[in-house]
Amino acid sequence: MQQQISIITLGVADLARSKRFYGEGFGWSPAFENEEILFFQMNGLVLGCFLKPSLEADMGRPLLAAAGAYSLAHNVQSEAAVLAVMDRLVQAGGRVVRPADAPFHGGFRGYVADPDDHAWEIAFNPAWTIDAQGHVTFGI
Amino acid sequence: MQQQISIITLGVADLARSKRFYGEGFGWSPAFENEEILFFQMNGLVLGCFLKPSLEADMGRPLLAAAGAYSLAHNVQSEAAVLAVMDRLVQAGGRVVRPADAPFHGGFRGYVADPDDHAWEIAFNPAWTIDAQGHVTFGI
Repeated sequence: MQQQISIITLGVADLARSKRFYGEGFGWSPAFENEEILFFQMNGLVLGCFLKPSLEADMGRPLLAAAGAYSLAHNVQSEAAVLAVMDRLVQAGGRVVRPADAPFHGGFRGYVADPDDHAWEIAFNPAWTIDAQGHVTFGI
Repeated sequence: MQQQISIITLGVADLARSKRFYGEGFGWSPAFENEEILFFQMNGLVLGCFLKPSLEADMGRPLLAAAGAYSLAHNVQSEAAVLAVMDRLVQAGGRVVRPADAPFHGGFRGYVADPDDHAWEIAFNPAWTIDAQGHVTFGI
């Protein structure tokens, strides 16, 4: 089977709030929106913001915790860009979970929670390449 | 900023168990592994399975719920493939959360939780294209 992830779907409480966070914070534009979902075309996969009760109904798993034991990452090209993106995300309704610093394995990163408490790591990792289409390749 | 997600990192309890699920269930091979993390090179991004205490320490967010209000999706090319993949995932240690059926918006999908309770939607959606590199494009 392809090593392929098609969608990441986040349960959210307020689509307008999510649209502001992902639009003003990251600068991303939706490919589609209606009264219960926003879809963003990403780098070879799709990000969805789906009303949490609708996601829970679709999954058949009610009353999920907002934040789970996972994180998403958005890598950028410098330490300065990590700080600049984190600032923008906070201005757009995010909350700093961990201020940016240098982990022992190298690079530079901090964590910001989106308005629904989903965690985004904003990271600079010079060993990982990102091409013009945003496709990210693992490196050491 | 690029509409780009670099990594999805899942908190897991047992790397050998995760390697079996993602290896035997999905047929995916890791690009890197050590005593606390597995990385899989995916379609323009990277999937990580990171020991949950290590992920929590890195995030500065202890004691997260295992399952959060989100899901990941792996799209395939037919209804029969949805059923076949779900069967393989269960044989590799997954658990059916919702048996496959046809949602009102079309297509065919079911949900399987991985051994750490992270939800995977296995879906057939003929409106979304997947190229030979596994890059997925939103469609209606």
